[in-house]
Amino acid sequence: MTAPSPQPQSPQAQFARDQWYVAAWSAEVGRDLLGRTILGEPLALYRTEDGRAVALADRCVHRRFPLSASRLDGDRVVCGYHGFTYDTTGACVSVPGQQRIPRTARVAAYPVVEQDSFVWVWIGDPDRADPAAVPRAPHLVEPGWVTVSGMEPIDADYGLLVDNLMDLSHETYLHGGYIGTPEVAETPITTEVDEDASIVRVSRHMPDAECPPFYARSTGIEGRIRRLQDIEYHAPCLYLLHSRISPTGSDTPVFRTEITYAITPSGPGTVYDFWAVSRDFALDDQEVTDFLREFNHTVVMQDVDALNLLQRCLDTEPTGYQELSINIDTGGLAARRILAKLAAR
Amino acid sequence: MTAPSPQPQSPQAQFARDQWYVAAWSAEVGRDLLGRTILGEPLALYRTEDGRAVALADRCVHRRFPLSASRLDGDRVVCGYHGFTYDTTGACVSVPGQQRIPRTARVAAYPVVEQDSFVWVWIGDPDRADPAAVPRAPHLVEPGWVTVSGMEPIDADYGLLVDNLMDLSHETYLHGGYIGTPEVAETPITTEVDEDASIVRVSRHMPDAECPPFYARSTGIEGRIRRLQDIEYHAPCLYLLHSRISPTGSDTPVFRTEITYAITPSGPGTVYDFWAVSRDFALDDQEVTDFLREFNHTVVMQDVDALNLLQRCLDTEPTGYQELSINIDTGGLAARRILAKLAAR
Amino acid sequence: MTAPSPQPQSPQAQFARDQWYVAAWSAEVGRDLLGRTILGEPLALYRTEDGRAVALADRCVHRRFPLSASRLDGDRVVCGYHGFTYDTTGACVSVPGQQRIPRTARVAAYPVVEQDSFVWVWIGDPDRADPAAVPRAPHLVEPGWVTVSGMEPIDADYGLLVDNLMDLSHETYLHGGYIGTPEVAETPITTEVDEDASIVRVSRHMPDAECPPFYARSTGIEGRIRRLQDIEYHAPCLYLLHSRISPTGSDTPVFRTEITYAITPSGPGTVYDFWAVSRDFALDDQEVTDFLREFNHTVVMQDVDALNLLQRCLDTEPTGYQELSINIDTGGLAARRILAKLAAR
Repeated sequence: MTAPSPQPQSPQAQFARDQWYVAAWSAEVGRDLLGRTILGEPLALYRTEDGRAVALADRCVHRRFPLSASRLDGDRVVCGYHGFTYDTTGACVSVPGQQRIPRTARVAAYPVVEQDSFVWVWIGDPDRADPAAVPRAPHLVEPGWVTVSGMEPIDADYGLLVDNLMDLSHETYLHGGYIGTPEVAETPITTEVDEDASIVRVSRHMPDAECPPFYARSTGIEGRIRRLQDIEYHAPCLYLLHSRISPTGSDTPVFRTEITYAITPSGPGTVYDFWAVSRDFALDDQEVTDFLREFNHTVVMQDVDALNLLQRCLDTEPTGYQELSINIDTGGLAARRILAKLAAR
Repeated sequence: MTAPSPQPQSPQAQFARDQWYVAAWSAEVGRDLLGRTILGEPLALYRTEDGRAVALADRCVHRRFPLSASRLDGDRVVCGYHGFTYDTTGACVSVPGQQRIPRTARVAAYPVVEQDSFVWVWIGDPDRADPAAVPRAPHLVEPGWVTVSGMEPIDADYGLLVDNLMDLSHETYLHGGYIGTPEVAETPITTEVDEDASIVRVSRHMPDAECPPFYARSTGIEGRIRRLQDIEYHAPCLYLLHSRISPTGSDTPVFRTEITYAITPSGPGTVYDFWAVSRDFALDDQEVTDFLREFNHTVVMQDVDALNLLQRCLDTEPTGYQELSINIDTGGLAARRILAKLAAR
Repeated sequence: MTAPSPQPQSPQAQFARDQWYVAAWSAEVGRDLLGRTILGEPLALYRTEDGRAVALADRCVHRRFPLSASRLDGDRVVCGYHGFTYDTTGACVSVPGQQRIPRTARVAAYPVVEQDSFVWVWIGDPDRADPAAVPRAPHLVEPGWVTVSGMEPIDADYGLLVDNLMDLSHETYLHGGYIGTPEVAETPITTEVDEDASIVRVSRHMPDAECPPFYARSTGIEGRIRRLQDIEYHAPCLYLLHSRISPTGSDTPVFRTEITYAITPSGPGTVYDFWAVSRDFALDDQEVTDFLREFNHTVVMQDVDALNLLQRCLDTEPTGYQELSINIDTGGLAARRILAKLAAR
């Protein structure tokens, strides 16, 4: 595939509904209401007194005031404008000035699964929501791992973030001096697609590579490294990069790092970029933890800036603009095909 | 009306022309040109040397430069770009580089009435402008009253401000701790509509209510109060809230406060919110004056923030979104009907 | 022409392609990539190691990332996202992860002429680009002249800047106290149009005029002056104002000032305003140089502010709004006609 070929043209115009999406980190959902817009649907998220995460449609039935700008009374949401009050099922249980509550007074409650430190919500037909189908990222909570994480909104189509993450050759250029070295762009990839499971796997194994600061400073390795990158993208939302590092020519020790992303479309041209770095080494070393948090945030912001800029450029392109794809794009193009299929369902 | 019913759907898509609107407080109009846009029409306002308020169309006939960015020469407006000069009738009386003035060189002059500290302008057919039809708010200037006032632009449809003011149950939630107490939302209203005069009256009489800080600190009352709210909305622009406060169980003394709003649509999705608080007590007490100015400004900004937020939410709603109205909305719905009728004329 | 007449209505809806435009001052183009958008076409400009100016289309063929956000490797541009590499002809010479380069991998290279301290680019069909047709402004580089210069982007249609510069009567009102005096607006103009060469000449000769601070402080003249303004507009881009000043009633000394503008449309509603002031006197006087740079920048910013404001006003006008033209507009209307003809070709 070294010449242009018919392909789904870049930004994903459509969203895949009837899917689980990460709406928030668990730590973001508490006793203050949190507003998030997922696939264009405004949600108000909060936690009940006994700790359960709740997601309601973020528009009061009365005059559409956002419930996320409201306050909690126990487990109930009291609209901040006129006091319409909702329980955790979205049923309106109190209105001002009268006892009778209109029977149609109800906001949608979204299926929620809290797992692996993520709050997942189901966007689509609630009857089709299967909690068992939520993909896993167990390293985010299992003992033996330490994780740093964050979330950045990007003013770009979510497809641009999928493109970005599926083709790590950009590490060499956009993240040179941070996580990129010449070998990333130089080394060919292998790609495996499971259309039925909506999973794309991209692997790039570098037997002898420079050690970028990200790994040198966290692992303490001083020379060259064997660097294995194994991507596992569970479309549409969860992206896992299994990274294994060891000194070149030696099989041990192996430093394992799990790079997790949740890619949640907020609306057309805007996406939430949830990111985490989990490591199985130096678990008690706060300096390493602080370094990885700060350093990876810098790397994420390089992507954020680039995608914001790219989207602004694309917004001024004539429609039907051309792209040219090469081998490095195999994984990204497979992801686009799967996303288009999920959106068309 | 406790169940949804056919009704004019919220934001007023149309403006009522052939009406008087408040363009400015008298104190805002002076010897510097002031630009205001009313119902989408740009106006340049100023005061002549002998004190008369003038409102001209804010676009030079030559190249559409705004006259509000120009300067006065006596009673004439000299365009800041090329010097086209207009008298108070809007006639062009001088152009650069030649003696002859094109006969069509004229900008519209708007009928103006200055009354009760407001500068009113007529938007529509000037021949239909009747100065006697300007509604009155005499407490703003009469002896025996002291007034604090201001103006805030809001990035919201003017219909949202009408909704807001016609249903004071929101005081309990949006202005709790300022002017709201539980009794406001709990107490039923009575509504009276004079379709011919385009007046809506909404009354809420609370015989025994908490005294909110607004009244406690201005009147000095320490216990509970009888609180009477009588709204008188002269569509489309003038809103009067006659407020009477006295200690619970006693008929005297009665503290009267007149809350005045002028609701002037600037354009689609933007409105000028002119506000005033007039009192008939503690007239010489500067501390009360300062308190009411500061405190009511805070309350107005709570509305401004809420309506800016609500408009942003509505802007992303699918068209034809649903509302659900209950008893508290009776006055607001009547106002919408009258505004729709005035706009359709 | 003192009454309204059929005429091209103000802002130029169309751009004239197949023309030379100033993309940058020579000094702006160096070994860092510079992004400029000309007639809606994004360009990346840089200078080769041996000093030649290059202009490439500013979109990588791979995923449309802007090359202006990239870096140079010798004379080659390395895309900052995935490393696609281009030579000075726009040919892609390297891609990541593979040896084979797709044969269609190429970005457009724009004809460039560097002359008189400007970097000119040809927007249109490259085969029609004639370097000999680039208009001259030799005073910008010739010995015997000292120049101060700058560039300001304006959020206004380029037609508004053409209007502004063709009718200097606005100096009296917009630049009063800087370069304007009453005589500019009062003195009639003569206009000469060479449709074939796309040149408009407007002259205003003032035998006895106030000397504005711009000239008083730079020349040292203390009394009144003879002031000659001779405009020579080479549509679409180059504007020359030949200014000659001498004391009233005397023919010597004559102080010559060349005011140069390049008017380069960036896109709809946005224009680059390149400006320069060249003088043939006080050549070694740094104080005069500093004064003219600072003072003329202030004057340019008065235009920038006025045109930004005017464009915002026009953007809210009903379409087909009226203008009224008089004698002073003769040159501007001729310019509009020529620009419309060039755009229609």
